[in-house]
Amino acid sequence: MSMKIASLQNPLVKRLIKLQDKARERKKTGLFTIEGLRELSLAIAGDYQVKSILYVPEVVGLDQLSKIATSPLINFFKISKEVYKKLAYREGTEGMIAVIKAKNHHLEQIKINNKNPLVLIVEAPEKPGNIGALLRTADAANVDAVFIANPTTDLYNSNIIRSSVGCVFTNQIAMGSSSEIRSYLKEKNIRIFCATLTENSKVYHTQNFTKATAIVVGTEATGLSEEWYQDGSQSIIIPMRGEIDSMNVSVAAGILVFEAVKQRFTSS
Amino acid sequence: MSMKIASLQNPLVKRLIKLQDKARERKKTGLFTIEGLRELSLAIAGDYQVKSILYVPEVVGLDQLSKIATSPLINFFKISKEVYKKLAYREGTEGMIAVIKAKNHHLEQIKINNKNPLVLIVEAPEKPGNIGALLRTADAANVDAVFIANPTTDLYNSNIIRSSVGCVFTNQIAMGSSSEIRSYLKEKNIRIFCATLTENSKVYHTQNFTKATAIVVGTEATGLSEEWYQDGSQSIIIPMRGEIDSMNVSVAAGILVFEAVKQRFTSS
Repeated sequence: MSMKIASLQNPLVKRLIKLQDKARERKKTGLFTIEGLRELSLAIAGDYQVKSILYVPEVVGLDQLSKIATSPLINFFKISKEVYKKLAYREGTEGMIAVIKAKNHHLEQIKINNKNPLVLIVEAPEKPGNIGALLRTADAANVDAVFIANPTTDLYNSNIIRSSVGCVFTNQIAMGSSSEIRSYLKEKNIRIFCATLTENSKVYHTQNFTKATAIVVGTEATGLSEEWYQDGSQSIIIPMRGEIDSMNVSVAAGILVFEAVKQRFTSS
Repeated sequence: MSMKIASLQNPLVKRLIKLQDKARERKKTGLFTIEGLRELSLAIAGDYQVKSILYVPEVVGLDQLSKIATSPLINFFKISKEVYKKLAYREGTEGMIAVIKAKNHHLEQIKINNKNPLVLIVEAPEKPGNIGALLRTADAANVDAVFIANPTTDLYNSNIIRSSVGCVFTNQIAMGSSSEIRSYLKEKNIRIFCATLTENSKVYHTQNFTKATAIVVGTEATGLSEEWYQDGSQSIIIPMRGEIDSMNVSVAAGILVFEAVKQRFTSS
């Protein structure tokens, strides 16, 4: 039976703190942490590999954890409440932190079985809360894949995992440069619809999103990079009627994606 | 010519720090602070009364400020860069903080001229980022009013002002208990559509939102309180097809409100 880790100086604990604080460390090791049984279940359901589980035995039993995390390759470590408190980002969670192996998010990993896929593309998103909301929308709409073009943040940032309420694990997500993603879409004959704020675009709900469709949104500050508008992409706009021409990017994406969902499920 | 305030111990500076930090202090004094010329212009355009302006003379000129803030009742104070840095919540803004008088957000202040108004009601919203996004959506959709039912946060929290990108000033906003707001809607013959996650609701886009319409959204955790479902309210649902039945509240509100906007501007 293993000892309980009770020191913040323990090398494993120090490594985990580094992993939580530094995107660079996550990139170097290919690992990240999650917490709570729900996130653990979703990660496992999403085919993520669990390396280790640290748990407070007074709070959660090994038998309970073993029912969710069944792989014999997982290392279990008991930790004290104090160590847990240092590692946990929320209060009142269930006394467990898991170390998970990041997935490969290259474009070629994406599997699309739908003949007329619907995919969501987000260029250079910055705020973890927005990325989380976008991933929730993507899950709710059951899009075939999410592409993050020119990513600026680490997907396994704890704020993204948290604000996605686990949807970071339920979506197929690919990352790449905008031009790589554009080539991919072209090769697959997926039509590109670029969300814009420019007046000469088509109003979004006049467009047909029932064929193979990519909805592309950019940043709130600068919109999409120029290359998205090339070669037959269709610019679309959500007409705004207020004093400030601006909408939260995840709200705009939600409106566009659910217009597509509506067309797909009422026209068939 | 007035002296420049250079000490963090200055009574005015201490009062402003308190105002920024404590909702209780804002409530007691009926004052709040904003920063930057854009927020100042929007607040003035929204008929907010400016009490004082503190500015760093090396960064922004009194002549420039006086062009925006024309009321002779405004007190101007010069401050040092150090004082500004302490008071400002963002880097790189334009060297000015203004003290603004809060508005009265009672229901009876709301003016609706539209025969078939569209209003957005949010019950007990918590996260400033969500409230900001909701207010941006309300502005973009040009709804007739926003109602915050059973408010749990102070509207003039700097995080709300910031994430609303000024839309806290461009919308008509009323606050009250859910039952006060329900009575108000009933009296005005505004039909209530409650966003839910329950299966026996009507799919949102099958409903007619072109008459006097209130779209009501609740919290992500607990939804709407029971009373909203009484007396002829219509429950509506955004069908979700993913693994996690959950959507960011401001995204859900955006989808519903823009469905109403679409119906209103394509059916006429």
